Amino acid sequence: MNDPTSRSRSGGGVLELLRRFKDDFALADSYATSCLEKAKAAEPVLKAFEYLPRDLTRRPGPLSGIPVGIKDIIATSDMPTTNGSPIYRDHIPARDAWVVERLRNLGATIFGKTVSTEFAWRHPGPTTNPWSSKHTPGGSSSGSAAAVAAGIVPLALGTQTLGSVIRPAAFNGVVGLKPSFGAIPRSGVHPLSPSLDHVGFFARCVDDVAYALSLLAATSELDPHGRPVPRFDVDVKEGVAPLEKPRLRIVRFQKWSRVEPDQQKMFEAAAAKLRDAGAVVEEREWEELDATNWSTVNTILSSEAALIYSDLVENYPDRTSDHLKSAVKAGKALTAFDYLAARSLQEKLRAALTAEMSGVDAVLTVPAFGEAPEGLGSTGNAEYCAPWTLLGAPALSLPAGFGKNGLPLGIQIVGSYRQDLRLLRVAKWIEGALAFDPGMPKIAAG
Amino acid sequence: MNDPTSRSRSGGGVLELLRRFKDDFALADSYATSCLEKAKAAEPVLKAFEYLPRDLTRRPGPLSGIPVGIKDIIATSDMPTTNGSPIYRDHIPARDAWVVERLRNLGATIFGKTVSTEFAWRHPGPTTNPWSSKHTPGGSSSGSAAAVAAGIVPLALGTQTLGSVIRPAAFNGVVGLKPSFGAIPRSGVHPLSPSLDHVGFFARCVDDVAYALSLLAATSELDPHGRPVPRFDVDVKEGVAPLEKPRLRIVRFQKWSRVEPDQQKMFEAAAAKLRDAGAVVEEREWEELDATNWSTVNTILSSEAALIYSDLVENYPDRTSDHLKSAVKAGKALTAFDYLAARSLQEKLRAALTAEMSGVDAVLTVPAFGEAPEGLGSTGNAEYCAPWTLLGAPALSLPAGFGKNGLPLGIQIVGSYRQDLRLLRVAKWIEGALAFDPGMPKIAAG
Repeated sequence: MNDPTSRSRSGGGVLELLRRFKDDFALADSYATSCLEKAKAAEPVLKAFEYLPRDLTRRPGPLSGIPVGIKDIIATSDMPTTNGSPIYRDHIPARDAWVVERLRNLGATIFGKTVSTEFAWRHPGPTTNPWSSKHTPGGSSSGSAAAVAAGIVPLALGTQTLGSVIRPAAFNGVVGLKPSFGAIPRSGVHPLSPSLDHVGFFARCVDDVAYALSLLAATSELDPHGRPVPRFDVDVKEGVAPLEKPRLRIVRFQKWSRVEPDQQKMFEAAAAKLRDAGAVVEEREWEELDATNWSTVNTILSSEAALIYSDLVENYPDRTSDHLKSAVKAGKALTAFDYLAARSLQEKLRAALTAEMSGVDAVLTVPAFGEAPEGLGSTGNAEYCAPWTLLGAPALSLPAGFGKNGLPLGIQIVGSYRQDLRLLRVAKWIEGALAFDPGMPKIAAG
Repeated sequence: MNDPTSRSRSGGGVLELLRRFKDDFALADSYATSCLEKAKAAEPVLKAFEYLPRDLTRRPGPLSGIPVGIKDIIATSDMPTTNGSPIYRDHIPARDAWVVERLRNLGATIFGKTVSTEFAWRHPGPTTNPWSSKHTPGGSSSGSAAAVAAGIVPLALGTQTLGSVIRPAAFNGVVGLKPSFGAIPRSGVHPLSPSLDHVGFFARCVDDVAYALSLLAATSELDPHGRPVPRFDVDVKEGVAPLEKPRLRIVRFQKWSRVEPDQQKMFEAAAAKLRDAGAVVEEREWEELDATNWSTVNTILSSEAALIYSDLVENYPDRTSDHLKSAVKAGKALTAFDYLAARSLQEKLRAALTAEMSGVDAVLTVPAFGEAPEGLGSTGNAEYCAPWTLLGAPALSLPAGFGKNGLPLGIQIVGSYRQDLRLLRVAKWIEGALAFDPGMPKIAAG
């Protein structure tokens, strides 16, 4: 059940590829090129990339030969970085983001820039859902999630300020990890709200996001919000050790009644399966978090976004969206008192998280209300992601089923602050216990 | 010239005492008691203490036998902690502040609570200047500075949000150290402005504050603003090694014309003496910091203080000062945009500090406009401290002369962010080169 390769059956996962590369140098050298061909074939429908690379030279290192998609709000010195905005259409940054530089040093192949919503806020890009091109892939890390789901790259970087990793991971049927706040330096990542912005990953299985985090977790002088997560290593052969029969706490929140029936049914079935496999599953709500998180996270986000984007919306009224203009307007109407009260509540809730989760290895909840909504005009609802983003808690979305439209559904697993490894070990066990493989979508106009 | 005991000639410094205690157990056991007698004799005029201890048991550890004065906004579980406010008159906290717990574990004797202005803001307590009881000792760490100057304790804790360590150190003729922002956890220290609050020390010589910092620098989960300064040890016999012939940069700011003639004269004489002793002294202003620091620091301070104190001034209109009410009122009038713009400028200037100080070991400036002003209604002007507090740079005030009223004058030495040890080594050299000993004041009604 806990075969480390179980979740990468339907496409090369990072660890699986690294194991194969060891014996097959030709594959290691040619793999990224074959991905580029796949990308080119899929792009007319998928539209996951802002930019595809020309040069795919392989370098040595623990990620040698692995192509990694980079969300286009993350600076690359050799490729354009549009930030999802026409204002930056031809912009090539002077230097790589910290995380890109690190990936290069680890031997990864920087495999192009994936579509982001405008500045990782709400205005969508052109990317379609690989399971149905009439549906949104979610956002803001739209292209990264879709590219991994379509089997184009085994690993991609995203960011999350409200729900921009967890939600698209669920909508595309891949694993998404948003590590603890501060785990990965954000220097060179265009900010939306520095008190909430996280760098995260998309991959095909838990071991792969664990491996990525083990290599990229760090602090840097360049990001004053950094908080080191305890270091851990992931063995390429074994992956992380599953935490057997974990103690899980289901949290539904008041909005549970708005969760789609398919998603509810899938969630109950998954919980039952985990109980049967030996997990201790309790149910308990967290009323204060439920009641306050949405207004708190939005107060912080719009206050901080207003400072960052006010000049831009003023100077480029024709090249900024109404979504961005609204955020700036909302933020400018807030007082320092509102903002600091929200930040103070964030700190209080974050401090309370450890106590709330004592005796529990992880929270089990949903990543979204259901399948990816139809239409490309909205990237969906982030309300189930926001509480955990506010807390800075590590969160992971795991594919767990399909909905009535044949689109993926996920579950969300949340850990204690800076207990990222424990979360990953719990998720590894759950992945084995559910033994669900969404397979690979066929990209075609819906 | 660099005899490590030079500055503690006129009264037992911490390291000097520890050296003597080694051979003289009777002294080690009785020293704190003799301090208590001194305190009781001085109190009728000095009024440095909110609370004096009964039990002076000596414990083992690197500060064994050393009585330490604790500013009364710092929580002690066995003594009242008034926060300088009648609202907290009989308040005994449930647990020690992080820094008090650490001091106890280091063997220090917690020697009573020293007078703070109301919540470390502007409303003064009763403490008088030991050099003249008609003059303010400065604030907000009034009692700690006065108690060290009067030879009652060799070490005392203060805090600085604008200039509450550096200014009283100068006004009382003692050494004051405000370490880098984040160097010492502030859990259990009543906040005024969490983005600016620092814990610092008063002592009789540079080695003593260096020793204190070497023992107390740490990070704690309880203070999310913590940033570790590189660890260093201070040898009890040798103290810190002076940084010979340092490269110094004089910064005067536009307000130099308002600096009192005595202070100007003393400063020029000190600079000349340091040049003669081999220091490389250059002059260069930092216009952006000069132009922006005062409004920036006050925007941050009043925004953050408004959140912390708004309920208090509303619920206790008769027991809160007009100073505190004004700060809350000013803070409540600010927008989130104002606040975040100020915080953003703080981060930008802090990042620029390293570049500004490249090729320079320390900045040399004044700690205040001159001697402690007459009268006890105001604690003096913090404008020369605020720029460095905003930056979070380590700063040290060193006694360097007397003014026309016979009150002490100081110089201020500022280091690069988190380069606390280098600052201390520069200060040690300067202390030796100036070879100035203010002696000990005679406490008497002015």
